[in-house]
Amino acid sequence: MSEEDADRDGPEDGDGDRDLEAVLAEVRDRVTPDEAERTRLREVADRLIDRAEAAATDRCDGADVLQVGSTARNTWIAGDRDIDIFVRFPPELDRETLEEYGLAVGHATLPSGHEEYAEHPYVKGEVEGFDIDVVPCFRLESATEIRSAVDRTPFHTQYLQQRLDDELAGDVRLTKQFLKGIGVYGSDLRTRGFSGYLTELLVCEYGGFRPLLEAAADWRPPVELDPEDHGTKTFDDPLVIIDPTDPERNVAAVCSAANVARFQHYARSFLESPRSALFEPETAEPLTEAELRDHLERRGTTPVAVRFDAPDLVEDQLYPQLRKSLDGITRGLDERGFDVFRATTMADGDAVVFVELAVSERPGVERHEGPPVHVRDHAGGFYGAYADDPQSYGPFIEDDRYVTEREREFTTACEFLESDRLFDVGLGAHVETTLEDGYEVLVGKEVTALIATFGAELAAYFEPRP
Amino acid sequence: MSEEDADRDGPEDGDGDRDLEAVLAEVRDRVTPDEAERTRLREVADRLIDRAEAAATDRCDGADVLQVGSTARNTWIAGDRDIDIFVRFPPELDRETLEEYGLAVGHATLPSGHEEYAEHPYVKGEVEGFDIDVVPCFRLESATEIRSAVDRTPFHTQYLQQRLDDELAGDVRLTKQFLKGIGVYGSDLRTRGFSGYLTELLVCEYGGFRPLLEAAADWRPPVELDPEDHGTKTFDDPLVIIDPTDPERNVAAVCSAANVARFQHYARSFLESPRSALFEPETAEPLTEAELRDHLERRGTTPVAVRFDAPDLVEDQLYPQLRKSLDGITRGLDERGFDVFRATTMADGDAVVFVELAVSERPGVERHEGPPVHVRDHAGGFYGAYADDPQSYGPFIEDDRYVTEREREFTTACEFLESDRLFDVGLGAHVETTLEDGYEVLVGKEVTALIATFGAELAAYFEPRP
Repeated sequence: MSEEDADRDGPEDGDGDRDLEAVLAEVRDRVTPDEAERTRLREVADRLIDRAEAAATDRCDGADVLQVGSTARNTWIAGDRDIDIFVRFPPELDRETLEEYGLAVGHATLPSGHEEYAEHPYVKGEVEGFDIDVVPCFRLESATEIRSAVDRTPFHTQYLQQRLDDELAGDVRLTKQFLKGIGVYGSDLRTRGFSGYLTELLVCEYGGFRPLLEAAADWRPPVELDPEDHGTKTFDDPLVIIDPTDPERNVAAVCSAANVARFQHYARSFLESPRSALFEPETAEPLTEAELRDHLERRGTTPVAVRFDAPDLVEDQLYPQLRKSLDGITRGLDERGFDVFRATTMADGDAVVFVELAVSERPGVERHEGPPVHVRDHAGGFYGAYADDPQSYGPFIEDDRYVTEREREFTTACEFLESDRLFDVGLGAHVETTLEDGYEVLVGKEVTALIATFGAELAAYFEPRP
Repeated sequence: MSEEDADRDGPEDGDGDRDLEAVLAEVRDRVTPDEAERTRLREVADRLIDRAEAAATDRCDGADVLQVGSTARNTWIAGDRDIDIFVRFPPELDRETLEEYGLAVGHATLPSGHEEYAEHPYVKGEVEGFDIDVVPCFRLESATEIRSAVDRTPFHTQYLQQRLDDELAGDVRLTKQFLKGIGVYGSDLRTRGFSGYLTELLVCEYGGFRPLLEAAADWRPPVELDPEDHGTKTFDDPLVIIDPTDPERNVAAVCSAANVARFQHYARSFLESPRSALFEPETAEPLTEAELRDHLERRGTTPVAVRFDAPDLVEDQLYPQLRKSLDGITRGLDERGFDVFRATTMADGDAVVFVELAVSERPGVERHEGPPVHVRDHAGGFYGAYADDPQSYGPFIEDDRYVTEREREFTTACEFLESDRLFDVGLGAHVETTLEDGYEVLVGKEVTALIATFGAELAAYFEPRP
């Protein structure tokens, strides 16, 4: 274990309370934007908001503009450069007009910006080093009336602005940095972790970073919080926080059980042994080919990799597709007796379903159980089908059933992966299309070819940590 | 498939009814003792009964003698040479005196006989080519009062003698010969099939051989018969026939589900295609070494054999011990990931637990799931136990749990079979003692060494039939 590892994992001796506060002070210092940064951001934001307001009211009576996101709530981490400007239009407007006005206001605000598409089209641009989004939405009475997810954002900002004082805002920064450090920050579908809004709600709810960690250390999922005590639905998620602005929504819906457990693990670990390393995202050293060979030899498993061109999708679409394909392929292997030991998926131009097998070969025969002999019709049909089949053994009787031993379709995992049957396992639709254009199966030592592209992913796989 | 096989298995075309009666006439002819045999048997039996009666009443007032078994009920198969003479003593007698008198009467009846031990000691001998047993028992009012199983026998004989006319007795002979032919006759614990008494009751109950077969073809186990309609207990057996002389006893208790299914299979097969081959016990050709090699290659499984000196036990004790050991060993292998494909046991001086494996090797690591992370005490203990273990991977988090990958105890089935852990699987007690004195593990091609002793058993295993 390297010293850096020990730094992340190991308990340290010392005065816990003083250590903890010292670590937090150090991290707080790093993540709090200084006065210069705040001023510059304020100036740029104000200027753009004014510009957007003029352009909006020019086109539509009753339009208004507000800043949302962490830079609006004083919860951004020093160095973050995102300014989100929302342009609200009256709900009477039809969607088409809203989009037209929205883009016009965006271009007026960011003359050098370009259009992107999320729920609505919007304009994105860079101004003095800041990343600016100008996003149109409807101005509604309450978040329960929203027509698309962006309409909800102003309600979130409003709710939190009322509750986050400077001290809590500081603790939000600590918490975000901690979640980033342990790899669970972000509600994108690759990470499936904690969103910014979720993080801020948790800090509000528990009253700070340290009380949140202390609570999380003792969580027994499902953990259910309902700050406004207005929830009307039940959820089957490990972490449930009813949106204060929408009683039917779980803010933590995307957060996976593993990420909740990870947060819990590191919360305990930090409280037991406070250290600033946990606030720094790990930069995994890529695995070398020699290290990969060592792992394979030591483990004695059979690695197989299905490699193909990654479908041309944004990450939020790509990763669910890859996971679905991974599930299908591992199920297909398991069902045919090729026991999967562990598996993962990787993407970077190429996409890979990587499966480590405990069993990669099976005998030439497989057991095939027939019906109980007493079920006369079926039993007779089964017996008749196999009695004169020179390819199969039996039928013989075990307990009350006919059993035959017949030829197996696939005796190696590789045969299966290279066959058309791979397309029956329930791949993601885009992955299926891509595989139809061709793919490659690497087996055993051949997987070392992945090192060049996926050294870091293979390190994470072969040197796994909480 | 050889012509002989086709003879046993195949359906034949033709006039079913006429064929069936012709086959039965042919078999009936073969199994019915002729007049000379009957006379000779009657003479020998009468002479010995007289001798036994004199010796019994000489020693004990109220003793009497009767002939039991198939030769007493006119249901023996031509050539059978068993005469069973039971000497009944009054129930007031204590057991010790009964045994003393019983042996004395036995020796008086069979001067050249020798003692054997079943429920009581008894005398066995040969007279003019007949095998004679002289067995003492208590004369009781009803079979429910019995003190040992032999006390029941006279009741069985009495019950059947009242019901079996010549025609039914002839059908009993057919049925016994059929059950012998298909390998399910005998209630010994090696066969676990149909006893003579059970066979006779079934023929009485259904009214003959053919109606029994027609009924059996449609059985849906559990099949429950209670000829005297007096049953007081329920049984968890596939075939239940309440003893007409004992409402608490299932006459078919020992009959395995597989043997019930086999009888059903061959009943259907015979009715569909009557043929006398089914009345001839199969004499399996021993497998040759070349054939064994061919099977192993075609199947691609890994055979392993644990060979040891058969414990010195009668078959009724030996086979349950071997089966228990077989169950334990296959469970032990399965639990360690060495998937058992099929297995059997053989005994002939040597005893063998023969296991065919679908998986005989496993990787160097095994997955070890810890508790859910939220179960703080256990989770902490688990994490602490493995976090600094250089021999194991992880702990990492999957779903809500810690998981490690640790070194496997056994990576080959052979290592396990040759280790002390073999003694933890629940072997039969006598087998365990024998293995402590040493045993041999044969793997792969090495099992061809079994051919010399177990050619027939290996033929039955590798060319399995209903």
